[in-house]
Amino acid sequence: MKCFVTYPKSCHFPIENLPYGIFSTQNDKIHRIGVAIGNLILDLKQISHLFDGPHLKNHQHVFQEETLNSFMALEPSAWKEARAKIQSLLSADNPTLQDNAQLRERALVLQSDATMHLPAKIGDYTDFYSSLHHATNVGVMFRGKDNSLMPNWKHLPVGYHGRASSVVVSGTPITRPHGQTVPVDGAPPVFGSCKLMDFELEMAFFVGGPPTKLGEPIKIETAQNHIFGFVLMNDWSARDIQKWEYIPLGPFTAKNLGTTISPWVVTTLALEPFIVDNFPQDPTPLPYLVHKDKFNFDIQLQVDIIPQNSAISTTVCRSNYRYLYWTAKQQLVHHTVTGCNMNPGDLLASGTISGEASDSFGSLLELCWRGTKPLNMADGSQRKFLQDGDTVTMNAFCEGNNFTVGFGACAGTLLPCKNY
Amino acid sequence: MKCFVTYPKSCHFPIENLPYGIFSTQNDKIHRIGVAIGNLILDLKQISHLFDGPHLKNHQHVFQEETLNSFMALEPSAWKEARAKIQSLLSADNPTLQDNAQLRERALVLQSDATMHLPAKIGDYTDFYSSLHHATNVGVMFRGKDNSLMPNWKHLPVGYHGRASSVVVSGTPITRPHGQTVPVDGAPPVFGSCKLMDFELEMAFFVGGPPTKLGEPIKIETAQNHIFGFVLMNDWSARDIQKWEYIPLGPFTAKNLGTTISPWVVTTLALEPFIVDNFPQDPTPLPYLVHKDKFNFDIQLQVDIIPQNSAISTTVCRSNYRYLYWTAKQQLVHHTVTGCNMNPGDLLASGTISGEASDSFGSLLELCWRGTKPLNMADGSQRKFLQDGDTVTMNAFCEGNNFTVGFGACAGTLLPCKNY
Repeated sequence: MKCFVTYPKSCHFPIENLPYGIFSTQNDKIHRIGVAIGNLILDLKQISHLFDGPHLKNHQHVFQEETLNSFMALEPSAWKEARAKIQSLLSADNPTLQDNAQLRERALVLQSDATMHLPAKIGDYTDFYSSLHHATNVGVMFRGKDNSLMPNWKHLPVGYHGRASSVVVSGTPITRPHGQTVPVDGAPPVFGSCKLMDFELEMAFFVGGPPTKLGEPIKIETAQNHIFGFVLMNDWSARDIQKWEYIPLGPFTAKNLGTTISPWVVTTLALEPFIVDNFPQDPTPLPYLVHKDKFNFDIQLQVDIIPQNSAISTTVCRSNYRYLYWTAKQQLVHHTVTGCNMNPGDLLASGTISGEASDSFGSLLELCWRGTKPLNMADGSQRKFLQDGDTVTMNAFCEGNNFTVGFGACAGTLLPCKNY
Repeated sequence: MKCFVTYPKSCHFPIENLPYGIFSTQNDKIHRIGVAIGNLILDLKQISHLFDGPHLKNHQHVFQEETLNSFMALEPSAWKEARAKIQSLLSADNPTLQDNAQLRERALVLQSDATMHLPAKIGDYTDFYSSLHHATNVGVMFRGKDNSLMPNWKHLPVGYHGRASSVVVSGTPITRPHGQTVPVDGAPPVFGSCKLMDFELEMAFFVGGPPTKLGEPIKIETAQNHIFGFVLMNDWSARDIQKWEYIPLGPFTAKNLGTTISPWVVTTLALEPFIVDNFPQDPTPLPYLVHKDKFNFDIQLQVDIIPQNSAISTTVCRSNYRYLYWTAKQQLVHHTVTGCNMNPGDLLASGTISGEASDSFGSLLELCWRGTKPLNMADGSQRKFLQDGDTVTMNAFCEGNNFTVGFGACAGTLLPCKNY
């Protein structure tokens, strides 16, 4: 597929990708929908009138809105039509945009001139715990090898409701939090700054399709119709605060201090070439969770840390989305099994994605094994947990034949504690 | 204070109350803001031009909106001014509304002609676990007397993020859910209908004031400025599903099947005459949670069940908001201690409110002590947990000198499981 916009083979935003995001520019502060192509953004607001196919001609307004929610709320047939139309408009064979200098001038914006925003108004955000290796690692550390996985773990995708208001877009700084911790086991808690700040390498998907009704679960057969696309996520975690607060109702303030997502939503359609076998599940889950078709993806994941005042980045983790035990379809179906309603723009995250190898673990907690194995950084420093000023950058990409589908960085800098 | 609308002394909506709600009528389906007075609703959209005081004259549009969020987003000085204005307009001394037949005709609607809706767009919903007796009861049942309270319980208000999308207004039916349970301890889970459906008697408050910023905790000194008003809540719970899923990340699908709130938001201003001493806290919490002023309320609570095809209601619980160990201010401050941002319209619930007496427990789990002490119903039937067709109605009211401040019922009927 040849695009009239030129870019190198290594570019994460070729015509095979076409991820959606929300951007603004210095000259036009209104938030609007764009599609990344090469180092440009195609402004869909400027070309909304070109979406004239049967599924979109009466819904062109969705491309004029300030978030992706209305577009996400359409049926998958509309998402497919939009993708085909954008691909056609950008292809070297199509003169519509290519040969219209005025329209091109209005509709193509340099990514470097744009500010990215959250892709959608996130009604609800849920975090799962779907990586076998991560759950096992954490279990071994906290409960010993024999009780590492809880009895329910292989029967259902364990998850919890997260805090939607604190989800932020890549680039937003995160402040080291205050909170309660127990530095000496058994002693009373103290109040102070978090000492054990960590990242968690996750991916998340945006729910699409019309809102579902309370009391009407999404079934496994149609689950895919509700999975619009994926982003990369850093679920920042205050480990010392989490340890003291999480029993019996789960993580709370340790996770609501900020959750960073990458700005570009890579659609499920763009990920299709990278489908791989699902992770083997033993025992076979209950029938309501079983799907035979593949819905796992070969997405390479990487985490880098750059210390403050340093130009030297250290890659601390290389993992892959394919290590997830539970598929996104199973997560969605289980989430709604009791009748929970879903809205377009809801965000469901994977949980930390750790592989088997010790350098594929998706958090410092695991990489440094609870602080016992410090990581050597390229600038000569060491890390057990994050230090003030550290910038954590996550990247995700799929390697195709002659092209790459990337997500755009999910980055954030840890600022020091403020005075309380 | 004399009102030109007449109502009996027992009425829950006297001029001393003035709760806000969102309603529509057969003739005008647009959602709009109303204030309950006697058996009427004062339609604020019709009288928005009368809010001409210094804090509201430039914000009259908030009374023309379809939810309370924009009004909630104003400063407490604006809430106070609105209350004073409405009280004045309804007082027997003020001719403005009383003597204007046309305006009265437009602005006063019979409650029986109105349909109530959710008071606000709820961005995030959080559920606490702040009743000492409830936490102790549940702890004794599941972990024995010696380990009933977790070590953190008296040091911080334990809470978890709930599901905002499934919060519904009183009157919405709730469907008995499907899910995973383990009927035989140690055996594999089975899929089927929930067998142990329960209610939880709670209250909740709506957050008000301008949105706060991520990374900027709300301090105890100013917490009250962010507490707009209160509703009654039924946190429907699937106990058998909860038991299997909740370790280690907390309740999830057992609670996202529906959470019912009463339609009228009783303001913190209206509750001031009912302030009582805070619950004694031992040990003294960490300084960031300490406030010396009283912020506890004498609100009487009652739960009734009417079986299907029966006209006979049975009162199964009489409790009181004052039994809460942690105050609403402490909940809010702890929720944001790590920097979580709050938006007007966010909802924070108390957790089940159980008193000391065995008939003051706020759930069937406790009232029937895990099914071992069935409740006798007035129609001759018994309950260990809820049966299909049961209507659970909660009521809350404060008794003043010569007046009552009530919340309006929080009611819902349990429908049988649908085919999966």
